[in-house]
Amino acid sequence: MTSEQKFGAGIWHFATYVDRYATDGYGEPRTVIDAIDLAGRVRDLSVVDLNYPFFGGEFTFEQVGEALKRNGLGVIGITPEIYTRTFAKGSFTNPDPGVRRLAHELVTEAAGVVRHFGADYVKLWPGQDGWDYPFQVDHGALWKASLDGVGALAGENPDLKFVIEYKPREPRVHMSFDSVARTLLGIEKIGLPNVGILLDFGHALYGGESPADSAQLAIDYGRLFGMDVNDNLRQWDDDLVAGTVHPIELFEFFYTLEKNGWTGVWQLDQFPFREDSVEAANVAIEFLKGIQKALGKLDIAALREAQVRHDALTAARLVRQALFMS
Amino acid sequence: MTSEQKFGAGIWHFATYVDRYATDGYGEPRTVIDAIDLAGRVRDLSVVDLNYPFFGGEFTFEQVGEALKRNGLGVIGITPEIYTRTFAKGSFTNPDPGVRRLAHELVTEAAGVVRHFGADYVKLWPGQDGWDYPFQVDHGALWKASLDGVGALAGENPDLKFVIEYKPREPRVHMSFDSVARTLLGIEKIGLPNVGILLDFGHALYGGESPADSAQLAIDYGRLFGMDVNDNLRQWDDDLVAGTVHPIELFEFFYTLEKNGWTGVWQLDQFPFREDSVEAANVAIEFLKGIQKALGKLDIAALREAQVRHDALTAARLVRQALFMS
Amino acid sequence: MTSEQKFGAGIWHFATYVDRYATDGYGEPRTVIDAIDLAGRVRDLSVVDLNYPFFGGEFTFEQVGEALKRNGLGVIGITPEIYTRTFAKGSFTNPDPGVRRLAHELVTEAAGVVRHFGADYVKLWPGQDGWDYPFQVDHGALWKASLDGVGALAGENPDLKFVIEYKPREPRVHMSFDSVARTLLGIEKIGLPNVGILLDFGHALYGGESPADSAQLAIDYGRLFGMDVNDNLRQWDDDLVAGTVHPIELFEFFYTLEKNGWTGVWQLDQFPFREDSVEAANVAIEFLKGIQKALGKLDIAALREAQVRHDALTAARLVRQALFMS
Amino acid sequence: MTSEQKFGAGIWHFATYVDRYATDGYGEPRTVIDAIDLAGRVRDLSVVDLNYPFFGGEFTFEQVGEALKRNGLGVIGITPEIYTRTFAKGSFTNPDPGVRRLAHELVTEAAGVVRHFGADYVKLWPGQDGWDYPFQVDHGALWKASLDGVGALAGENPDLKFVIEYKPREPRVHMSFDSVARTLLGIEKIGLPNVGILLDFGHALYGGESPADSAQLAIDYGRLFGMDVNDNLRQWDDDLVAGTVHPIELFEFFYTLEKNGWTGVWQLDQFPFREDSVEAANVAIEFLKGIQKALGKLDIAALREAQVRHDALTAARLVRQALFMS
Repeated sequence: MTSEQKFGAGIWHFATYVDRYATDGYGEPRTVIDAIDLAGRVRDLSVVDLNYPFFGGEFTFEQVGEALKRNGLGVIGITPEIYTRTFAKGSFTNPDPGVRRLAHELVTEAAGVVRHFGADYVKLWPGQDGWDYPFQVDHGALWKASLDGVGALAGENPDLKFVIEYKPREPRVHMSFDSVARTLLGIEKIGLPNVGILLDFGHALYGGESPADSAQLAIDYGRLFGMDVNDNLRQWDDDLVAGTVHPIELFEFFYTLEKNGWTGVWQLDQFPFREDSVEAANVAIEFLKGIQKALGKLDIAALREAQVRHDALTAARLVRQALFMS
Repeated sequence: MTSEQKFGAGIWHFATYVDRYATDGYGEPRTVIDAIDLAGRVRDLSVVDLNYPFFGGEFTFEQVGEALKRNGLGVIGITPEIYTRTFAKGSFTNPDPGVRRLAHELVTEAAGVVRHFGADYVKLWPGQDGWDYPFQVDHGALWKASLDGVGALAGENPDLKFVIEYKPREPRVHMSFDSVARTLLGIEKIGLPNVGILLDFGHALYGGESPADSAQLAIDYGRLFGMDVNDNLRQWDDDLVAGTVHPIELFEFFYTLEKNGWTGVWQLDQFPFREDSVEAANVAIEFLKGIQKALGKLDIAALREAQVRHDALTAARLVRQALFMS
Repeated sequence: MTSEQKFGAGIWHFATYVDRYATDGYGEPRTVIDAIDLAGRVRDLSVVDLNYPFFGGEFTFEQVGEALKRNGLGVIGITPEIYTRTFAKGSFTNPDPGVRRLAHELVTEAAGVVRHFGADYVKLWPGQDGWDYPFQVDHGALWKASLDGVGALAGENPDLKFVIEYKPREPRVHMSFDSVARTLLGIEKIGLPNVGILLDFGHALYGGESPADSAQLAIDYGRLFGMDVNDNLRQWDDDLVAGTVHPIELFEFFYTLEKNGWTGVWQLDQFPFREDSVEAANVAIEFLKGIQKALGKLDIAALREAQVRHDALTAARLVRQALFMS
Repeated sequence: MTSEQKFGAGIWHFATYVDRYATDGYGEPRTVIDAIDLAGRVRDLSVVDLNYPFFGGEFTFEQVGEALKRNGLGVIGITPEIYTRTFAKGSFTNPDPGVRRLAHELVTEAAGVVRHFGADYVKLWPGQDGWDYPFQVDHGALWKASLDGVGALAGENPDLKFVIEYKPREPRVHMSFDSVARTLLGIEKIGLPNVGILLDFGHALYGGESPADSAQLAIDYGRLFGMDVNDNLRQWDDDLVAGTVHPIELFEFFYTLEKNGWTGVWQLDQFPFREDSVEAANVAIEFLKGIQKALGKLDIAALREAQVRHDALTAARLVRQALFMS
């Protein structure tokens, strides 16, 4: 964390959304180009993560590249859409081997896009891989397929990093890569150096984890390849604006990154269904900058000493003095 | 409950769905006519609840009526879609008075559709009415608007019943009509005889209620005007097939209805995202018929006596003997 | 809220605890007198809520009164212990009429203690009233017994206020007075002016309520007779130090009280199992004083205007500017 | 699973309990000898897990052994009480090295008790190891201490098995060994063959896991050394009677064990606070025997075929036909 801390966002932050009720969407549809142009209006945004295929129409790499350029944005990652209709019953774990092959091909294509844009990683979010009902799947086989799918891709593309974004659930009732520990267990089993974790603060939170602890664990395994933040009510992936509900745990999360010398991009993964998306990003980044300043004010020596004693009250006071007004 | 127990379903059970990830949908789009024809293929389905406007195209009452007729289906309720894009920030509680008026007009139209089809009620599910963030709304004003909106409609249409389907959350992070008690409190405040509750078993369950207790409370206030069932993991409105996760509480729910002499339709409100929707309804109704038989087998005198003592173990044994194989 | 805002605490804040694992307790047992002497060491504590019977030995009113006096403490409420072994299967709802009578007698005695100490209310927390298992109880009868029990006491003691502290669960898997709306519904049914709500911020939070909304609703019914704060992870009644997890919702809660001109004591209901209890109270009150200051800084006109538009982003910014350092 | 399936129980099933409210307990205190005599009255109970030190007084191995003998009970495991007052801030992770040493010594003693009674394992349930507040601990150091503590014991006692019973929370707000995956990750790091998992069905369930999936994962790592069952509302460790809330997932859990040829004892870990403990065990075992029979009836070939297709509806039908009456 420095005064030049880079901020990023998933490009979907600037899309409009549909859900099962507002099937006509929470706004006029936007193309990826529209979204990039909106991202460009956010103060202090440097990089974006792009869904692939590009949404909203057929766009060439050149068109996308030009939009990025005119908005001063780089690409941090590419997220292949392995969770759309084709993959409704899973990507790597789909019961149909033909669909599993399609997933493999789509991610392989996405790897090419990563290379094209000089991005940092292919992001894997296999949100349809899991189950909904008791007795629906053979759990051992499902987990093996999850690992085989990721392992094959990482093995074939040793020049690239693959990051897995775990999440407890949604859209499946239970997702295979559901927690930091499960994902690390899988990554260790895969055994390749280029597979890591993209830690979503909100996913950790509503999965019952302490995001700071999750970050530390991933770092201790050398697998924290990326992260993003948002907020929620600890029950669902609400993707609210970062800092609006859990500012203290957010602070602890960034404290943990800093303490470990983790110096990556601070990304947003928010879904501003009913809000102006540019302002939603601005409000979040303003808060993150407040956190940056608070990190500078935090009496780290005193905190460490309190932590040696597991002294929650002293820690709470130190946090208050750094983060809050009075 | 008799051997001629009627079963029903929301017509959306037979639609296909979109969500924020599978934006291209979990299947080919269907029209309301397609959905009615699928509903007609379910064994033992007598009535449906229809969304209004009819989805998938422009259809006349005659076309819809004809489709119903050829499938032997009646209409139990009409659900005006007061939760689509226009109403993204609320229907009765929308900050824009123009949108509130649109909601009023749409529900008034739906009242006409109820009359046309001789249905039992207008169903109000104001899923966008609520809030997402701390400090977003004036809670007193929001709640008042919720009641004013419903009250005006019920007052203007005294010949019809209006049922409110409460739900803790989704799509809003917090929904105004969030629980059975809150909804009853509101209904008592409105003070009209034609406003009641449509109790969704799954909403009660994931809201931390015991659905049997919720049913009893609504009945004791004379406000249980309808109900539907499904299942979930007590954390979200998963709308899984009824009986697949919580068969015992489902049994207790129907026991409570029977004990009170409540003789309405047993409806399904399921969202079979990845399943065959006809089979999803059949599997649920098969289970419900099992419940019917189990109600016949249950030693009610012994159960009542156990309940006088709050004797959970005897009650559990009696339930096992009625519902389970051994 | 003024610069002379009064702070209070449940006297159990200064007790030691047992639970089902640390059956030998989280510290040496303390008497109520020990606890009062500890309470007296907290900066800025004015009043306490006393359990009755007094814990840790036999103490006369004089002994307790003297301890209070030497510590400069008043009594805000008396909490009869209607949740100990005798009442394990319920107080007002106990299946045994003899135990129901004992509950009535104990609360009646507690009413006398309220009069003796000039306290504000008898606090009813019927934590053992509810159920654990499906089919265990007749829900209608249980609820009626809850209301009859409270109503009889309030009717017999019209000179006193009775406050019900609702809570979703614990020690019962489901508690009868489980939510703000259910409790208000019950209070309206009882129909007496001297029954109100003691709103526990944490209970509202982990019950899926927004505490600010709960406060507004109770106020709108004229039933917010008292309140206390603490914090938790929205899943259980952790009774953590106030402000350590949900500072923003805590701020919204106090904003709502202030806006409605509610001027009661700001109480603590914390269980510092492993912390120094005096310091746990000090840390909480320091945070509450920060909240007081933040209320003074909050641009209320701008906030109200944002709320008219349901403008969450502007509201979030205003909150940040008032509550956070930067 | 055979007709001679062995059943077991934690001896605490037959104790009485205290909690933070009913500090005088849910019944008269019992000694371990009383509890063994109650366990002996349960039909079909073969083995018990004993807390160490023995509760309720000073008892010699001979006295305990005699009580076991006269009740026809064997010992499956010994559970050292590393979660009482001394260990309130942790056993293996206690900030005080002296307390960590006490934990080591107590477990070492317990290892001797295992040898004395010819039990299968030392059970480690470090329920006080974890944290309550953000910023309270150094997460990396805490986790390392957890593993070091277990590893030292397992290394010093290579002739014995050590089983870790993970649990999301309680009494700590967050427990170090919180999930099946985290525990396996830790066990792999420890790297000793004699450390495994004691899988508690209820802990998996309320931790958001599917217990069948958890069992499969532990088995696939060769680490499922023991298990026990109970039930809850997926939110807390309610330790209700097995089968009373989630019979279908319980069935899937046992199906998974059988499918993998796992042939250990089916144990109960229930806390019948308000119920007769002998009857609570009987009711549970009756249900487990029903599950045994249902496993015999289940069309496994058809189920496996359905699972290949992830066909939830067919699976649900097959389950209904095996487990339910109709």
